[in-house]
Amino acid sequence: MARIVMKFGGTSMAGIERVRSVAERVRAERARGSEVAVVVSAMAGETDRLVQFCREASPLYDPREYDVVVASGEQVTSGLLAIALQAMGVPARSWLGWQLPIRTDDAHAAARIEGVDAAVLERAFASGEVAVIPGFQGVDAGGRIATLGRGGSDTSAVAIAAAVRAERCDIYTDVDGVYTTDPRIVPRARKLRAVTYEEMLELASVGAKVLQTRSVGLAMKERVRVQVLSSFGDGSGTMVVGEDELEEGVERQVITGVAYDKNEAKITLTDVPDRPGAVAGIFAPLAEASINVDMIVQNVAHDTGSTDVTFTVPASDLARSLDALGRNQEAIGYARLVHDTRVCKVSVVGVGMRSHAGVASTMFSALAQRGINILAIATSEIKVSVLIDEDFTELAVRVLHTAYGLDAEAA
Amino acid sequence: MARIVMKFGGTSMAGIERVRSVAERVRAERARGSEVAVVVSAMAGETDRLVQFCREASPLYDPREYDVVVASGEQVTSGLLAIALQAMGVPARSWLGWQLPIRTDDAHAAARIEGVDAAVLERAFASGEVAVIPGFQGVDAGGRIATLGRGGSDTSAVAIAAAVRAERCDIYTDVDGVYTTDPRIVPRARKLRAVTYEEMLELASVGAKVLQTRSVGLAMKERVRVQVLSSFGDGSGTMVVGEDELEEGVERQVITGVAYDKNEAKITLTDVPDRPGAVAGIFAPLAEASINVDMIVQNVAHDTGSTDVTFTVPASDLARSLDALGRNQEAIGYARLVHDTRVCKVSVVGVGMRSHAGVASTMFSALAQRGINILAIATSEIKVSVLIDEDFTELAVRVLHTAYGLDAEAA
Repeated sequence: MARIVMKFGGTSMAGIERVRSVAERVRAERARGSEVAVVVSAMAGETDRLVQFCREASPLYDPREYDVVVASGEQVTSGLLAIALQAMGVPARSWLGWQLPIRTDDAHAAARIEGVDAAVLERAFASGEVAVIPGFQGVDAGGRIATLGRGGSDTSAVAIAAAVRAERCDIYTDVDGVYTTDPRIVPRARKLRAVTYEEMLELASVGAKVLQTRSVGLAMKERVRVQVLSSFGDGSGTMVVGEDELEEGVERQVITGVAYDKNEAKITLTDVPDRPGAVAGIFAPLAEASINVDMIVQNVAHDTGSTDVTFTVPASDLARSLDALGRNQEAIGYARLVHDTRVCKVSVVGVGMRSHAGVASTMFSALAQRGINILAIATSEIKVSVLIDEDFTELAVRVLHTAYGLDAEAA
Repeated sequence: MARIVMKFGGTSMAGIERVRSVAERVRAERARGSEVAVVVSAMAGETDRLVQFCREASPLYDPREYDVVVASGEQVTSGLLAIALQAMGVPARSWLGWQLPIRTDDAHAAARIEGVDAAVLERAFASGEVAVIPGFQGVDAGGRIATLGRGGSDTSAVAIAAAVRAERCDIYTDVDGVYTTDPRIVPRARKLRAVTYEEMLELASVGAKVLQTRSVGLAMKERVRVQVLSSFGDGSGTMVVGEDELEEGVERQVITGVAYDKNEAKITLTDVPDRPGAVAGIFAPLAEASINVDMIVQNVAHDTGSTDVTFTVPASDLARSLDALGRNQEAIGYARLVHDTRVCKVSVVGVGMRSHAGVASTMFSALAQRGINILAIATSEIKVSVLIDEDFTELAVRVLHTAYGLDAEAA
């Protein structure tokens, strides 16, 4: 008997009609003989509404009280889905984070799951009852509600799937799978039958916002097989699995997908002294402010013994970054602080890269042929990213999608 | 040091600005040196919204899941008020029903509080931290959220006040106290400085919807001094206390107040056999359906050996009553079943009635003088109620308010 954790996002739960559709999907999965547990998000828009309440109550809200407020959204949908399932004759009940329990650390509003007690769920499976569990939340050691940060319901689902050793964790969302790139930009983008955890991590973190990054990391660590599929359509989605589980015999491209991320900001410090320790002096204050620096370029030293240093930070951290650097101008010794948010990071991702040379050079020449200037470069074992002018985003994505042979056959 | 439980209703919590006003009141009470715990309702309209979700999910919803859904409204306002208090420099935290805990029975959606653990609250008082507690809910022995039924937050507040032996339970609402009658009908109605529990029970149950009936019964049982006062104005409200606590020397009227209730329906069964057991045969099926019968009139027997029986039930139970009686027509042996919802119950209430004769006759003659026909009568030790045609409601209330000397001096 297959054991499946099904997770439904906010658009899937937006309103009672959709809750009923979700219940019907759960009923059908159970009718196929599966043991089912369900993880739900809040209704679309509800978490935003609750977060806004907290901000209005105080911009410096206590994250422990914020958690009490925002966790209510999933509490509501859990109860409603249990009611809708019962109305279809499916035994069901809600299990809140503190009832299971789902234990977290006490980093409120951004908590990490420390453990999921599987005993209740095992009993539910044994009795044929569907457990409906609010995503995004658990309870800390002090017995207070803790939420996992936005998008945390994916992580809840994967953690629960790991705890009950589920055969699969199906993440139902408003897209029907993971594509080779954004189909709004490249109509001939193809849905992938499978990607590896590593690829998904790179795709998620560079802007293909299908799964929360942390949930993919957890799935990889716990070896949970994740499927991304649509709440609204039929058919299978994209499996996210270990590299060893990729089907043999299926010809894989060197590159699995092309992603882009416009939420980067470029910062340049001019005329930094070209001496040991100077660069460390730049990044220490940013690290202290918990700002993640991504792409870094250090220019060749000028004749004057100084150099320019360029790097990117998340656009949401730009103001804090400029503040931290401004306060340290004297210590760092730079001349000017220049920034630009009209940039985009475009990445090609694929495990096939490990065994194929020339991936980066294909990228650079394809972009150069269209006159797209590269502002910065970053690479990992399975990814090459370039920073470009934001205006060229769509062009770059299309060029690379074609260059790596990802375009679907014309219909 | 005074220990006060403050309770705020839904209109007091409707939106962040009002939550901030509530926080300011709590801050001021604490600044006067009081130990304070706060009980909050959901934002006005929120519980209705959540109830509607449940009904749409299934008209026959599981009350245990309904409780999970609707309890979220007070969870939200608890967290928000804690945030708003902290923003004013007042140490505060929310304590949900399952965290304190507030223990209830398992009559979900209409649960009764079995006990409130005061240990957490005593620690909060000792440390100067304001405990913010969602009203209307607790946790049953099985660890599931249970709600108390609509208006239950008043009961939560009184139960908590009893548990911590508070000096007073202040119920902040959208009226500034209990009046001799509805000021919308009688502009010269006066605000009462004090009423007894018994009077408040009668006033609450006959339509002066200031406090939930159950909360008054609990306050009487636990001897909790309750004050009803306005969230929006200043000044003291109405104290609800034991008869022994009524101020001596204050001249009290025989009648404390005049109340009315349009939510009654009159049912008449014609030609019921006039023999022992016939009336019992009428009320047994209603009792089985848990329908409360209020005023009963049995007419003098007809020459035919039969009689007409008239009684009232809550208008919301009319359909079920007619159904139960219709199914038992043969057993009861009545000829026709007639009903009328265009009736109103008008009551005069006062503990002074015990020591004064002639209260009822004053009522009947005052109504007769204006040509108001009495359809049924019911009395208790401190109340006389009459059922009249709904069209005469306002006239009857005004006539009685004057007849018992309750009108305020003209300004």
